[in-house]
Amino acid sequence: MNPQDVEQLARKLREGDRRALARAITLVESSRADHRQSALSLLTSIMPYTGSSFRIGISGVPGVGKSTFIEAFGLHVLEQGRRVAVLTIDPSSPVTGGAILGDKTRMQDLARREDAFIRPSATGGVLGGVNRRTRDALLLCEAAGFDLILVETVGIGQSETAAARMTDMFMLLLLPGSGDDLQGIKRGVTELADIIIINKADGELRFAAEHTAADYRHALQLLKPRTADWTVVANTVSAVEGLGIEEVWSTVQRYRDIIRHSDILSMRRGQQARAWLWEEVSDLLLGRMRQSPDLARCVDRLENDVVGLKIPATVAAEKLIDLFMNAEVP
Amino acid sequence: MNPQDVEQLARKLREGDRRALARAITLVESSRADHRQSALSLLTSIMPYTGSSFRIGISGVPGVGKSTFIEAFGLHVLEQGRRVAVLTIDPSSPVTGGAILGDKTRMQDLARREDAFIRPSATGGVLGGVNRRTRDALLLCEAAGFDLILVETVGIGQSETAAARMTDMFMLLLLPGSGDDLQGIKRGVTELADIIIINKADGELRFAAEHTAADYRHALQLLKPRTADWTVVANTVSAVEGLGIEEVWSTVQRYRDIIRHSDILSMRRGQQARAWLWEEVSDLLLGRMRQSPDLARCVDRLENDVVGLKIPATVAAEKLIDLFMNAEVP
Repeated sequence: MNPQDVEQLARKLREGDRRALARAITLVESSRADHRQSALSLLTSIMPYTGSSFRIGISGVPGVGKSTFIEAFGLHVLEQGRRVAVLTIDPSSPVTGGAILGDKTRMQDLARREDAFIRPSATGGVLGGVNRRTRDALLLCEAAGFDLILVETVGIGQSETAAARMTDMFMLLLLPGSGDDLQGIKRGVTELADIIIINKADGELRFAAEHTAADYRHALQLLKPRTADWTVVANTVSAVEGLGIEEVWSTVQRYRDIIRHSDILSMRRGQQARAWLWEEVSDLLLGRMRQSPDLARCVDRLENDVVGLKIPATVAAEKLIDLFMNAEVP
Repeated sequence: MNPQDVEQLARKLREGDRRALARAITLVESSRADHRQSALSLLTSIMPYTGSSFRIGISGVPGVGKSTFIEAFGLHVLEQGRRVAVLTIDPSSPVTGGAILGDKTRMQDLARREDAFIRPSATGGVLGGVNRRTRDALLLCEAAGFDLILVETVGIGQSETAAARMTDMFMLLLLPGSGDDLQGIKRGVTELADIIIINKADGELRFAAEHTAADYRHALQLLKPRTADWTVVANTVSAVEGLGIEEVWSTVQRYRDIIRHSDILSMRRGQQARAWLWEEVSDLLLGRMRQSPDLARCVDRLENDVVGLKIPATVAAEKLIDLFMNAEVP
């Protein structure tokens, strides 16, 4: 893309054009060198128009009803006059074939709304690359005027932590019935939550859902709150019946007001940005190390020796750095 | 140090000489270029003699009685025929002046034993460097024949996570009285624990201690166990009266047997080693980036722009990489 094309794309994006947004996200996801140049240029130009959304990470195991909930919640929020974007983090999604998350076919009512935007999973690969693409897509959505952005993730790898670290609030969806072990949630994920939502709280499961909510409220009282002045809330919801959705939105607004008022939001975003910078530097450097075939072979061999406990990690690291530095000098 | 000196140091170390061990640890902590060379050489030569200890991370806020507990626990373990080393992670410790952790004056009975070794905090600095030094010191202790290694940490920065990631088991010390908020424990630390120890369970506090232990047992049941086949244990202990120490050691042995038998231990150590390798590569590269004064100024400026949300992290990262790569070519 030439600079004028990038400029025009930026312009249409800022007008809220959903097709332009989709094209822009595809551009920042691409790893082609020429696309990278245009992507960096685009991101730089729209930077002043970012930052004004509220960002929520949403996680839950398959079967918990995440799509149904996101659609119900999204539609409710649209009725309050917001513009909602749904992004996803899924490092396992296949390069070709159907997306696992952000599946528009499961959120059709939301997907067809002009004031909503749903993006299926970025192509799979190294989690680092997936995080970067999602974070950059988030910035583009903000520049396009979406003021509530949901980042969806399923329980794979470090994707929940990644989602929590690029958002302002983290929502965890659970099924009625206590115990992460039963629910298949990884250690450490529950503790990320600012709000826990027990879904499918309808019919026979209603009491079980209330009981589960109470259990989690009690357990979380033992853990230090992730955010000062905020006690984690556990709500029961029936997404399919539309129950409890309004209460979730009230909770979100209450939380958002607290962290905006106390400056926690802006401080946190600055810290997030700094962390992203150094993660990205790290990823880029390591990526370059793996680019030369010779170096890549050495890398694999040294890594195997380290994993096999044959050489100390410290020693292998110094060797790799030397190889890299020497390979760079022509 | 010339190669023969390194060889002799390695030899004395492997004979269990505590002075040699102390000198070796000082060597790996040094950042002088010539010391680094000798340190890498030493670490490489003792690598075959490492890996045979059991490694426990221990954390707790100041005032919980960590030193008293470590001494009581250490002395008990010595009576079982083990050799115990105590290392520390404390990124805040001053370069000069008294160590905050691993203070031998607070564990005198343990410190004077030939079959024990206590190392005060490594000099403070970037957490990455502190982690590396502690991990390398751990390897040296193993080569010196210490078969139980305690890595102590206080609640600063990411030191608990760092300690958990370089050990096989994580112990969290708490005071009687429920609630991390009351205890000042950071979010996420409780969930690292494989065993929770409520200390000062004596006199009037005995019932409060039991109640706290029960609370944590209940709460942790809601969280997925960090280790398969292991339910987190919460024990009450009075370190100063020597009560409950034997039970803690039994629990440690039970846990150790489970993870050895199931191969979790060896798999985990391989994964830890791999993670260390790439953390170290990252740290070394970033360290080199900051070495040139010109580059360091650009780094600071770009970082400030990123934290101030003026440029996207992605864009700044690519700029930094370019600067670095170009600076490297003579």
